[in-house]
Amino acid sequence: MTDGGPLARVFLTRVLEPGDETGGRWLREYGVPEVVHRLRGGGPPLPGVSGARWAGLLARAARADPGQDLATAREAGVRFVAPGDVEWPVQLDDLGDARPLGLWVRGRPGLRMWALQAVAVVGARACTEYGAHMAATLGAGLAERGWVVVSGGAYGVDGAAHRGALGAGGATVAVLACGVDRPYPRGHTELINRIAEQGLVVGELPPGEHPTPSRFVLRNRVIAALTRGTVVVEAAHRSGSLVTARAAQRLGRFTMGVPGPATSALSAGVHELLRGESVLVTDAAEVVELVGDMGELAPARRGPVLPRDLLEPAARQVLAALPGNRPASPEEVARGAQTSQDEAVARLYELRALGYVERHDDGWKLTRQALISVRGGRSRC
Amino acid sequence: MTDGGPLARVFLTRVLEPGDETGGRWLREYGVPEVVHRLRGGGPPLPGVSGARWAGLLARAARADPGQDLATAREAGVRFVAPGDVEWPVQLDDLGDARPLGLWVRGRPGLRMWALQAVAVVGARACTEYGAHMAATLGAGLAERGWVVVSGGAYGVDGAAHRGALGAGGATVAVLACGVDRPYPRGHTELINRIAEQGLVVGELPPGEHPTPSRFVLRNRVIAALTRGTVVVEAAHRSGSLVTARAAQRLGRFTMGVPGPATSALSAGVHELLRGESVLVTDAAEVVELVGDMGELAPARRGPVLPRDLLEPAARQVLAALPGNRPASPEEVARGAQTSQDEAVARLYELRALGYVERHDDGWKLTRQALISVRGGRSRC
Repeated sequence: MTDGGPLARVFLTRVLEPGDETGGRWLREYGVPEVVHRLRGGGPPLPGVSGARWAGLLARAARADPGQDLATAREAGVRFVAPGDVEWPVQLDDLGDARPLGLWVRGRPGLRMWALQAVAVVGARACTEYGAHMAATLGAGLAERGWVVVSGGAYGVDGAAHRGALGAGGATVAVLACGVDRPYPRGHTELINRIAEQGLVVGELPPGEHPTPSRFVLRNRVIAALTRGTVVVEAAHRSGSLVTARAAQRLGRFTMGVPGPATSALSAGVHELLRGESVLVTDAAEVVELVGDMGELAPARRGPVLPRDLLEPAARQVLAALPGNRPASPEEVARGAQTSQDEAVARLYELRALGYVERHDDGWKLTRQALISVRGGRSRC
Repeated sequence: MTDGGPLARVFLTRVLEPGDETGGRWLREYGVPEVVHRLRGGGPPLPGVSGARWAGLLARAARADPGQDLATAREAGVRFVAPGDVEWPVQLDDLGDARPLGLWVRGRPGLRMWALQAVAVVGARACTEYGAHMAATLGAGLAERGWVVVSGGAYGVDGAAHRGALGAGGATVAVLACGVDRPYPRGHTELINRIAEQGLVVGELPPGEHPTPSRFVLRNRVIAALTRGTVVVEAAHRSGSLVTARAAQRLGRFTMGVPGPATSALSAGVHELLRGESVLVTDAAEVVELVGDMGELAPARRGPVLPRDLLEPAARQVLAALPGNRPASPEEVARGAQTSQDEAVARLYELRALGYVERHDDGWKLTRQALISVRGGRSRC
């Protein structure tokens, strides 16, 4: 508990609320071991909180059992990813003292790889049919272009975006405002389980935790920070999706909005954004045109960034299953790599982020750069 | 014919097409009298045109009868306004060599005054119900805020914008691509006649002239130049309204667009604009917020720019009919000034442009500055 390792951070996710900047400052100024020590009652209160609040934190700390949390999580197929881990998406560090203490992750793919080429598609829960249509179309279109679709797993726009990506055989990540072992909303249990099969379900809260209004709001900063840009599909004035968009703006990410009728209250918030810094988009091509224009984050156009030999065995196997001269379907790749289709898709998106493969409609093929590196490798044999 | 006066320019509107920049250069370099002299066959051809084209111009010139044109116009209640005249809207000079040779004008109000606070609302002829609704709402809302609504008199968005302004008892200007004595389209004869009663119908072409595709395109530059900004309500890709918007952009005017569903082909052109420099607007307040923010062109906020004694008698009469302490309806003002309601509204919008009056919902009242100047005038008696 005093080594500052994963167990310490698991403990902290049980004690501190997501996005607690005072807690973030403690970690920065005192280090994880000392903060854990104090919260366990070993020393004077940490600064910046009232006596009552400190007592509340101590009570939470007394009830925390990080070993049990990790065990419960493992049983539910959930792992814990902390800053410094190889799977940690470093762009979350942009959140400063509001950086998550760690993320609970359900699903096969590597979060860090997937987040390299990810776009958020968010919007109203009570969206119109038009909003659902646009979210699904964008989700599918982004997936077809090899982008990972990130959203909040909610009813309405979020769900439509996830479903669009899934339906296109693509990659999608749901960021929840509760424990990732207990899907919320309940009506999306099946969808969220499907996302955990084909993609990733992540969240800051430890197993069993419920969502609260403030957790929903603070979850949005993770969606914003994880992605290169946020598309708001439908949002009324003062909608939570606007919180995500403003967080994205503060983080220097792209913000985009899908226009709608000026007479629709559910487009009013989007139009408000579009009268500011946000860019109007009407399809996935326009989204990719904008967010794809960042040379330093787009390894696909420069060739693989990670030597072939350093790939994980599962990824190497999938790479080897790709024919050299034509696209292959995920089914074919899965057969060749002797694995499941979901596993193959997970690896293909990782390989895409690394610049090894690209998506062509329903198939995948090696990039030119990958072919050169493969040939180079072979000629050395 | 050689004095460069109105008759010479009337002659030129019969010979040169609207927006002919070669002709504009001739006028700048040789002066009106010399250009008229050459076109009448007195001297060598002017430079920059083929022999065939010059012969065509001479043939047109031989058929021209400016005295008859002026008489025909006068009979139809049409006057001719040329650069340099007191009624000439100086902002049209921004068009350079493409500046109109003059404008044929039907209606009571002074064009120069009205154009001081004018916004263009344009869009697709074959608009959707949504487009017609938005155009009418914007037309009414702009009129209610004391702005003059300028459009092209066409079916669809144009007509809806004019009707919205008329219905709100407001000011509207139709800029036609044909002689203002022969309304086009024919189905809008009644609407255009009504605009000539309550507002202004203007155009570059002499009596009896028909519209042509190129005349429609070139008419759009007049709409753009005459106004402080252009709002495009609905427009497909490659629509004529986009021509107006781009002309407005080149002239340094504001360009605005009303968003619509991303799935609507009739909003695609507008969305294209909004992905560029244009500003998204959803109501008249947002339009006025943008175009009203030009101190040097907004005398209303600085007080009257023209001394009371220099006002035309009809305007002075209307000004005198306004009560000092409350708004009055146009009916009441008309009664007090012993004139018709259309005449009263025409003068009220002129007085508004000059900073004497402001509109409050359905009524008009003296501005604070006007009250001070009236009191000042009285105290000198």
